[in-house]
Amino acid sequence: MCRAGVILSGCGGKDGTDIAEAVMLFLALDRAGVETICMSIDKDQFEVVNHLEGSTQTSGQKRNMLIESARLACGGIVNLDGVENVDFDILVIPGGKGVLKNLSTFMSEELEFRVNSVVQRIIVNTHLSGKPVGAMCGAVVLLAKSLENFVESLKITATGQSEEGRIAIERAGFSHHDCQEGEVLIDDENLIVTSPALSPDVDLEVVRSTAESMVKALLTLITDKAL
Amino acid sequence: MCRAGVILSGCGGKDGTDIAEAVMLFLALDRAGVETICMSIDKDQFEVVNHLEGSTQTSGQKRNMLIESARLACGGIVNLDGVENVDFDILVIPGGKGVLKNLSTFMSEELEFRVNSVVQRIIVNTHLSGKPVGAMCGAVVLLAKSLENFVESLKITATGQSEEGRIAIERAGFSHHDCQEGEVLIDDENLIVTSPALSPDVDLEVVRSTAESMVKALLTLITDKAL
Repeated sequence: MCRAGVILSGCGGKDGTDIAEAVMLFLALDRAGVETICMSIDKDQFEVVNHLEGSTQTSGQKRNMLIESARLACGGIVNLDGVENVDFDILVIPGGKGVLKNLSTFMSEELEFRVNSVVQRIIVNTHLSGKPVGAMCGAVVLLAKSLENFVESLKITATGQSEEGRIAIERAGFSHHDCQEGEVLIDDENLIVTSPALSPDVDLEVVRSTAESMVKALLTLITDKAL
Repeated sequence: MCRAGVILSGCGGKDGTDIAEAVMLFLALDRAGVETICMSIDKDQFEVVNHLEGSTQTSGQKRNMLIESARLACGGIVNLDGVENVDFDILVIPGGKGVLKNLSTFMSEELEFRVNSVVQRIIVNTHLSGKPVGAMCGAVVLLAKSLENFVESLKITATGQSEEGRIAIERAGFSHHDCQEGEVLIDDENLIVTSPALSPDVDLEVVRSTAESMVKALLTLITDKAL
């Protein structure tokens, strides 16, 4: 049975992993007969956003990324801290504002940001060991930054990203290509699949089909490699 | 365009609305061309459960049901407090432990529990105005209790419910029927659709097909009524 590692950064589109995108990814993996291994790190989220108001909660409340990711994963989750190797065949990172907020120093260092070292290591190691890696939405920026000094060129999409996100991808040394919502961009050479940042009011069916396309593309890359 | 009112009780299967069940319901509604109107009440959750450990967090953290439901709904949510009427054609309540924990007094009064008056009013009014009502998983108990003195007999399922849940349904005066996972039980006469409480490790595809069956059944009941 094929196994997918999925990196989560909390539970909520504005301060963690996007709920709809993650659940649609879990569904696509389940339908493809792939076992899902959710992973996160034991660290407080950058902030807790009031999703009703859209503002930052000033209650001073703290939420731990690993615990909140377990909430989204509905149970089992692997703590990446201290784990040398997780056994999976493909790696996918769903989007949400928490990807950069929680898994990098983007909020404090802006374009000089660094990816959390544990997360970067797993992305780089997976790539260097010849396994396909997928990034959805905001996770595309994290992926690009992680592979900055490890890949010469990368075929990825920046469609739907903020201006800062696009600049971050370019600063990492990568050009980017357009990609329609509902589709994914495949880099056959580097075994990388990326999807556009979807608009907040996009139909859930588009999120579903994007996730399905993502999983299909990643599985095809495994098969192609084996041929 | 048909409109569905969806009652949420927070964001998380162990202390609020079950995330997977809610997202699959949103997907089924979206695919059927139904507009979704999420609704909740402005009240703290009964508790905040650490979904990593499965235990009750002792941090004394409080989370507001309306705010957390907005997190799950990804934006717009209606505060039911003080709202006399919400305009929709069908009403659905997805499951999760938070349904009884947060929307009733089940945790303190056990089998003598009462449903939150605002929530009960919307359930009863929807039913009395001849609109179909659906309840998934743990929400079946809430539905039965809400309609206790308003319906003579009800054809619902208690499959998968806890012993206490089954007793609560029987005490409300309703017999119950078996229903397989992935299917729903339809009460044509009372325009009520219920689904079994799914096992925690059920495939997401079963959650998806249950939600799809739920939405199809509710829409059929509207059409039948119109004939």
